[in-house]
Parts: sequence; C-alpha cells; structure tokens
Amino acid sequence: MKTKQSSADLVRDMLNGSVRATARLITLVEANDSSVPEIMKQVYPHSGKAYVIGFTGAPGAGKSTVVGKLARLLDQSGKKVAIIAIDPSSPFTGGALLGDRIRMMEDLGTKQNVFIRSLGSRGEMGGLSEATYRVANVLDAFGKDYIFVETVGAGQAEIEVTKLADSVVVVLSPGMGDEIQAMKAGTMEIGDIVVLNKADQAGADMLASSLKVALHWATKNGEREPVLVKTIAVQQKGIEELWKELEVYRDYSIENGQLKQRREKRIRIEICKIMEDKIMRYLDKFTSDSKEFDQGIKEVSIDNKNPSQQAEVLLETFLSYLKQQENLK
Amino acid sequence: MKTKQSSADLVRDMLNGSVRATARLITLVEANDSSVPEIMKQVYPHSGKAYVIGFTGAPGAGKSTVVGKLARLLDQSGKKVAIIAIDPSSPFTGGALLGDRIRMMEDLGTKQNVFIRSLGSRGEMGGLSEATYRVANVLDAFGKDYIFVETVGAGQAEIEVTKLADSVVVVLSPGMGDEIQAMKAGTMEIGDIVVLNKADQAGADMLASSLKVALHWATKNGEREPVLVKTIAVQQKGIEELWKELEVYRDYSIENGQLKQRREKRIRIEICKIMEDKIMRYLDKFTSDSKEFDQGIKEVSIDNKNPSQQAEVLLETFLSYLKQQENLK
Repeated sequence: MKTKQSSADLVRDMLNGSVRATARLITLVEANDSSVPEIMKQVYPHSGKAYVIGFTGAPGAGKSTVVGKLARLLDQSGKKVAIIAIDPSSPFTGGALLGDRIRMMEDLGTKQNVFIRSLGSRGEMGGLSEATYRVANVLDAFGKDYIFVETVGAGQAEIEVTKLADSVVVVLSPGMGDEIQAMKAGTMEIGDIVVLNKADQAGADMLASSLKVALHWATKNGEREPVLVKTIAVQQKGIEELWKELEVYRDYSIENGQLKQRREKRIRIEICKIMEDKIMRYLDKFTSDSKEFDQGIKEVSIDNKNPSQQAEVLLETFLSYLKQQENLK
Repeated sequence: MKTKQSSADLVRDMLNGSVRATARLITLVEANDSSVPEIMKQVYPHSGKAYVIGFTGAPGAGKSTVVGKLARLLDQSGKKVAIIAIDPSSPFTGGALLGDRIRMMEDLGTKQNVFIRSLGSRGEMGGLSEATYRVANVLDAFGKDYIFVETVGAGQAEIEVTKLADSVVVVLSPGMGDEIQAMKAGTMEIGDIVVLNKADQAGADMLASSLKVALHWATKNGEREPVLVKTIAVQQKGIEELWKELEVYRDYSIENGQLKQRREKRIRIEICKIMEDKIMRYLDKFTSDSKEFDQGIKEVSIDNKNPSQQAEVLLETFLSYLKQQENLK
C-alpha cells in the first residue's frame, strides 16, 4: 500500500535519516515537480555544509574507478559520500521518472553509506545544472559531507554542470592522443586538479611532462596552476594523494574567495530557475483559466488579428494578473 | 561571401519565391532565434491559405510512401505541396542547426515543387508543436497549398503535433499485430481518415473488417466516423481516393466548425509561446544586467538568506522591471 506523502513529511523523514524519503525527494526534484519550490524552501536551511566535487574527463580514462576509489577512501575515514552521475544516455522523458541506477562499482556495492544516483541529461534547455545542484542540496541536507558530481560522458552540457562544483577534477589517461588534444581546448582548463590515471601504462611519463607544460601555459598570470596527480586507481594508488590535494585546494579556494564565487554562481542559477518556474506556472494558469485569454484568442481566430500583436496585448493583461496574484499571496 | 540578411529581407525574398530564403527562415524558426517574433509578425498576414494534413501511424506501414505518392498526385494537379517530417532521430542541439534532409522519395526527387524539410524532435519541453506550426505558417506564406506534417516515428510528442493539423491521417498496414493493438489505444482515434496501406498483403481484408468495427465503436455519438481508405501506395493505388476523402473531410470540417476549432488551438499555442519567449528574454536580461538582481544574489550568498524567499522578492522587482519595459516599448 502506497500513501502519498506530503513534501514536508518527506523532508522530515529525510532529516531523520530515511534513504527512501531522500530518493523520493530527488525523484521529485529531477522531475521538476510542482512541489519543488516547497521542498527546496524546507531543504535549504539544512544545507550548506557539504563539499561538492565535479569529475569530468574523456570516457575510458577510468573516471568511475577514480571516483569509486576516492568515495571508498572517504567512506572508510568516516565521511559520508554521495555520487551524482550525470548520464546523457538516460534521457529525461516528460513525467516519467528515472529509477536509481546502481552502477556496478567494485567495492562500493556493499557500502551502505555511499549513495549513488544517476541523473539524465535533459538536453539543451532542460535545466540540468539546476536539477543537479538541487539534488546536491537535498543530499547535503541529508547529511552527506562530500558530494561527487560525475559526468558519464564529456558533452558540453555536462562539463558546464561540473564547472559549478566547489572544485573540479579532470581525469585523463595515456593512450588517448586525440582525446587529449580535444580536451586541451576546453575541459582541461576547468580542472583545479588534473588526474593522470593508469599512470603505469606506456606513455604515462611523457604525457605527464607534456601535461605539466600545457597546464603551465594555460594558467593565466596570478591564477593557481592546476596540480597534476598520478593515479593507478584500480590499485588504489594515488587516491590518498588526490584527497590531500583536494583538501589543499579547498583551503586555497576558501582563502582566495573562489569557493564563495562558485557557490554564488550556483545560487544565481537556482534563483533564476525559481523565478522562471514560478512565472511559467502563472502563465500556464493564465492561459488555461482566464477569460481574457480566451477572448483574446477568439479575436485572432474570428477577426483575423495578428497573433504577434495580440500576444503583446495579452502579455499586458498577464502582467496585471501576475501583479495581482503576487499581491494576494 | 556571406552577408547576413535581415529577417525583413528574408521574408521579402521568400514572398518573391526564393526557396533559399524560405529554407533560411525555417532554420531560424526551428532554432527559436531571437528574430522569430519579428519574422512571424511579417509572415502572419500572408498565411492562412494552406491546408495542413498530419500523417501518423506505425513505422513500417508505408507512411512515407503514402505521403510521397499523395504529394506527387497533388503536385501533378498543379497544387503546391510541402512536407514537414518530424524526425526524432535528429535531436535538436542547442545553437546547431539541422540541415535540410532530402529523403530519397521515389518520384519526388526530381520535383522542384515539393519542398521537404526535417524537423528534429526537441524532447519533452522543446516546443515541437510551436516550431512545426510556425514552419507551416512560413510555408503557407511562401505559397504552398498543402502542407503535410509527417511523423517519422510514433512517439507521443509527435502524435500531439499531428493532432493540431487541419486533418489527420493514420496509416496502418497488415501484419503488424502488436503495433495495431498499441495504436488502438490512442493513435487510431485521432485519425479523421484511416489508411490501410499494403492492402494486397495477406490479412488485409480481415484487418479492414476489424478496423471498421473498431472505428465504429471508437466513435462517440454525434461524431463523424473516420473513413477507411485502402491503398497500395507503391502502385499508386487508392491515392486518388485518399485525396477525395480528404476533400470530403475538409468540407465537413468547415461546415461543422472543426477546422476553425483546430486552427484556434494552434493560435492558442502560438500566442502562449510568444508570451513565454518574450517573458523569458526579459528575465534573461534582468538576471544578467540588473543591479537589483546582483544585490539580491549577494544577500543570499553573504547573509545566508533563503534563496526561495529571495527569489520571491526578486520576482517582485522583476515584475516592476517588466512593467517598465513594456511601457517603454
């Protein structure tokens, strides 16, 4: 038997530690359900403590392994970790909700503490960033200390999402010549830390040297040069160093204001999204309920008025309507 | 050498018969370019003459052949035809524009008069209906007498698009048991005309009988029962009858007001879209330019205000801003 829980109930259960309620809230957030404004209002006061790390890089570089091993290390050190995997192969389809996709991550499968969740890429205008960071806020309020945002692919939209994290890790590996070239153009320069994974493979040392040069040249005057960390993630090698470097970067970014800047950017996006959603909901209501709108349509249809001009007239009417709704609230 | 033409120039060239200008306008409309409101304002007075027919049905039923043969027949009778193919396999990707995809349509390849254009499905919230009927408006103004909107697949979003046409043709064929079952649920009942293609194949007569029964039962009291037309499109058989039935339906739909109703629905959608686009453009401007917005963000970031509540405050500010912009216009 299923009973529909109010969002307040769900948030309360989440704050009391319910994984189920958390998963349900994430599903609502991802679907941009009408309850989201209410949910976020309740979630927000409990968030702000987690540290969000974005992971991106060419497919095949072993990103998931790096992420998995780091999650494991943090988990073993008593930190609470959640992973949000941005997966473009799970297209969001109106109304339908994505289930949790528990990836087969070696070692992680048995850990109860690492929460893994896939988010589908919603295409160009779908608000992937907003959805991702709202989900991160929920997980933050749920009590996670670290939230990893991992892109499954390396599409532009996904990279944009990673950019908004508190820090960004770019994962590369030897033997991907073309990919590295392509990444130099954009991905690499968003990394605060660059991981050279599979560092025992042929060409690793040469790649490391050329990466160092590239990173040096790509860094603008006065900016911090990204640190290069070598890992062999399948053997757990270099993972501790990666964590250490992440902590060093965190301190640095607090000191120089970069952390505040990135979080401000996320707030900006979140507020834009709230405003947009609210206006769109009012517009839906106006165009489906109001007599003025019906009348306006009839005039176009019968008197053959120009729809563009009529839309402008109706926009005026809508603004008055909106003003009224806002005042009544 | 490329020179950027203004939308007014493009519309003028299109009205003078330029296929190139028409294609360019369609590309702009599909991309929801910022020039679209201006384009539509200029296009609208020249539209309203074309008759729009939607074609849907299970893949494999020979829809494209039926559409192609009908287009050819109308073309030979001196009518001007355009085909808009809604193709979900051409996902719209931000900014990037789809080229015209000229499908290999037997007979049609050499006809200059039949304009064929693919539109990508833009996913759940992409305004596929708006884009399609705006393109139809452009082609209408360009002087086409008939515009065919053909769905390549049979997804829900595509079917929704077809529904808005002046008349809807559902194409079926024998030997697709499961598909027919699935279609009975929804697709079939949106057809004003049901085409049973490949009518020479095994099982065609039986299917025809059961379709007639199904159509009879699916038709509500007082509504017109969809006509069943048998075709063997590859042999051109039944295509004339299909045209005849389309004309009969057109007269009927003018008489009983159904045509007006459907066009009113399209106008409604178009006007909603114009309003939405306009508001969103103002919101973009407000959130990127205004000092009030910047200040509001800072308050959340520094004073740790709740973003939801701040968004409401900023919404008020935006409304005043919007009001001002509208008055200045």
